Amino acid sequence: MTLLVVGSVALDSIFTPFGSTADALGGSAVHFAVAASLLHPVRVVGVVGDDYPMQELERLAPRGIDWSGVEHAAGESFRWKGKYSYDLQSRETLETRLGVFANFAPKLPVGGHDARIVFLGNIDPVLQLGVLDQVTSPRFCACDTMNYWIQSKRDDLLKLLKRVDMLMVNDSEARELSGDWNIHRAGRWILEQGPTRVVIKQGEYGALLIEPGRSFHIPAYPLEEVFDPTGAGDAFAGGFMGYLARVGALDTDHLRRAMVYGATMGSYSVAGFGVRGFEGVTAADVEQRVRQFIDLTHIPAAEPAP
Amino acid sequence: MTLLVVGSVALDSIFTPFGSTADALGGSAVHFAVAASLLHPVRVVGVVGDDYPMQELERLAPRGIDWSGVEHAAGESFRWKGKYSYDLQSRETLETRLGVFANFAPKLPVGGHDARIVFLGNIDPVLQLGVLDQVTSPRFCACDTMNYWIQSKRDDLLKLLKRVDMLMVNDSEARELSGDWNIHRAGRWILEQGPTRVVIKQGEYGALLIEPGRSFHIPAYPLEEVFDPTGAGDAFAGGFMGYLARVGALDTDHLRRAMVYGATMGSYSVAGFGVRGFEGVTAADVEQRVRQFIDLTHIPAAEPAP
Repeated sequence: MTLLVVGSVALDSIFTPFGSTADALGGSAVHFAVAASLLHPVRVVGVVGDDYPMQELERLAPRGIDWSGVEHAAGESFRWKGKYSYDLQSRETLETRLGVFANFAPKLPVGGHDARIVFLGNIDPVLQLGVLDQVTSPRFCACDTMNYWIQSKRDDLLKLLKRVDMLMVNDSEARELSGDWNIHRAGRWILEQGPTRVVIKQGEYGALLIEPGRSFHIPAYPLEEVFDPTGAGDAFAGGFMGYLARVGALDTDHLRRAMVYGATMGSYSVAGFGVRGFEGVTAADVEQRVRQFIDLTHIPAAEPAP
Repeated sequence: MTLLVVGSVALDSIFTPFGSTADALGGSAVHFAVAASLLHPVRVVGVVGDDYPMQELERLAPRGIDWSGVEHAAGESFRWKGKYSYDLQSRETLETRLGVFANFAPKLPVGGHDARIVFLGNIDPVLQLGVLDQVTSPRFCACDTMNYWIQSKRDDLLKLLKRVDMLMVNDSEARELSGDWNIHRAGRWILEQGPTRVVIKQGEYGALLIEPGRSFHIPAYPLEEVFDPTGAGDAFAGGFMGYLARVGALDTDHLRRAMVYGATMGSYSVAGFGVRGFEGVTAADVEQRVRQFIDLTHIPAAEPAP
C-alpha cells in the first residue's frame, strides 16, 4: 500500500556528551522516511529553503524515498539546535529557527492523494487536518504531536484525533494531553477521543500499543552505546508505518509486529547523529534485529507444576 | 526445593495521594514471603520486637509461610515512615526507627541450614554474608541491596557478589553500584563481579533479566490503579524465587518464567497498602495473570513479505 509522510525537513545542530554536529539532516519526515524506506517505498511531503543539501538527502537513501513532494521555498530551512544531558535522558532546545517552515501549507503532489497509509508528523494540527482533507481513500492514518500543540492548539488537535486511526506520542505528551499521569488511563482517554489505537513511546523503556481492552509492550533494544536520541521517535514511526504498508494488513497481529519494526528502527536511529545510524543498514540486518527482539521478549512455554 | 528468605519484618506508615496507613505489615521479608507463598512454602528469618502483631502475620498467610525463624527480641520493631509524590514516582523517607533491627544477626533455625533457594533481602551485606556461611548446600542464592549499603559497605557488598548467583536491584541502584548510567553496561559490570545473572527492576516499566550475552525484558502489568508501591520489589523477588523453588529448575527458560511470576506478584503488591493487595488472591488468579503477561508481550509469528 502507498505510504506517505508529511512533516518537517530540517537541519539539526546537536550537542551530546559524545560529540556534536552542525546542520545534520533531520526533521520528522526525514527520520521517518529513512527508516520506512528499509521496508517500503515512501513519499515525503515537506518544505525546504534554498540552503538545504538536497543532494545529501538523495544520496542517503536511494532505496525508494520519493522526495518530489518536498517543496522548495525562498529562504532558510528549518533549523533546530539542542543539547542533551550527560545520560541523554533530557534535552534543552537552544534555538529554533522556523525559516520557510513558518509558512508551510502541505500540498500533496500528484500521486499523493491516493496514499493508503499516511503519517502526519509533528506539525500544527491545523496543517495535519489540511493534509487529511487532501487524501481521498486512506486505509490507516496516524499522527504525532507535541506539548506545544497540546497547549496552544488543543481544540484543533482534538478535531484531528476524531479523524485519525492512531495517535503516536511520547509518554509525557500522552500525560499532558489526557491530564492523567497513569499511562494506561491516559491511553484509554485518548482512545475515547477517536483513534482506535494509541502508541505511547517510552524512550529507553520501549513502547506501548494500546487498543480497546488489550495492550502490548515492546522493550527498547538493549544498546550499550546510545549516541543521539534525536529522531528516534520518528524512526520508530517509520518502521511501524513502513511495515504496515509492506504487509498491507491492519489487524492486531500485524500492528504488534509493526511495533517490533518500529523499535528496531529506533535502535538504529540512536546509534549516530542525524540519520547516520542507518548508514550501511540492510533489509537483512533489520530482519535479524527483529528476531533478536523476539528472543528478548520470549516467554518460554509453561510446564505443569509438580 | 526449600525456600528461605532473610530480611526485615517491619511496620510501615505510608502516605500516598490516595490515603495513608499506620503500622502496616511490611519489611522485605514479609512482602517476599506473602508473594512467594502463593507458589511454594517459604521459611522466614528476621527479627521483631515485643510490639509486633504476629497474629496478624500468621492470620494473613496460612498457606505455607513458616515464621518460626523470626526471632523475638526485647524492644521496638523496625518502623519506616514514608511519603510518595502525586504520581508515585518518588518517595521521601520521613522516619526510620531501627529498633531491634539494629542488633539483628540472622541465625538460621533448625531446617534452615539446608535451604536450596535463598533470598537475602536488603540488609547489611555483612549480615547477608553471615547467612551464606550458615547455608550448607544452596542451589541458588540471590540478594538485594540499596544505595545506603552501596555507599557505606561497598567492599563487603563486592565480597557478597562473588558468592551469590544473582543480584536483584532497582535501576538506580544498578547505576550507582556500577557507576554507569547505561543500564545494559551496568548489568554487564555487575556480572563481572561474580553473579551469573542480574535482575534490574524498573518500576512501572517492568524488569530486565541480564545473563552473559542474553537479555530478557518483562513489562509491568498495565494497571490503571496503583495504590502503594512499597514492597513491590520484594514481592517481585518472592514471585521470582518462589517459582524457582516450585519448579526446582534454574535454566534460562525457567528464569524467564520466574520473571513473569515476579512481575505478577509486583502487580498485586501495588494494589493495596502493605500486603493487603494480596488479600483474596488465589493460585488460580496468579496463573491467569501470568497468561495475561504472555498476551501482553506476545509477538505474532511473521508472514513472508509480499
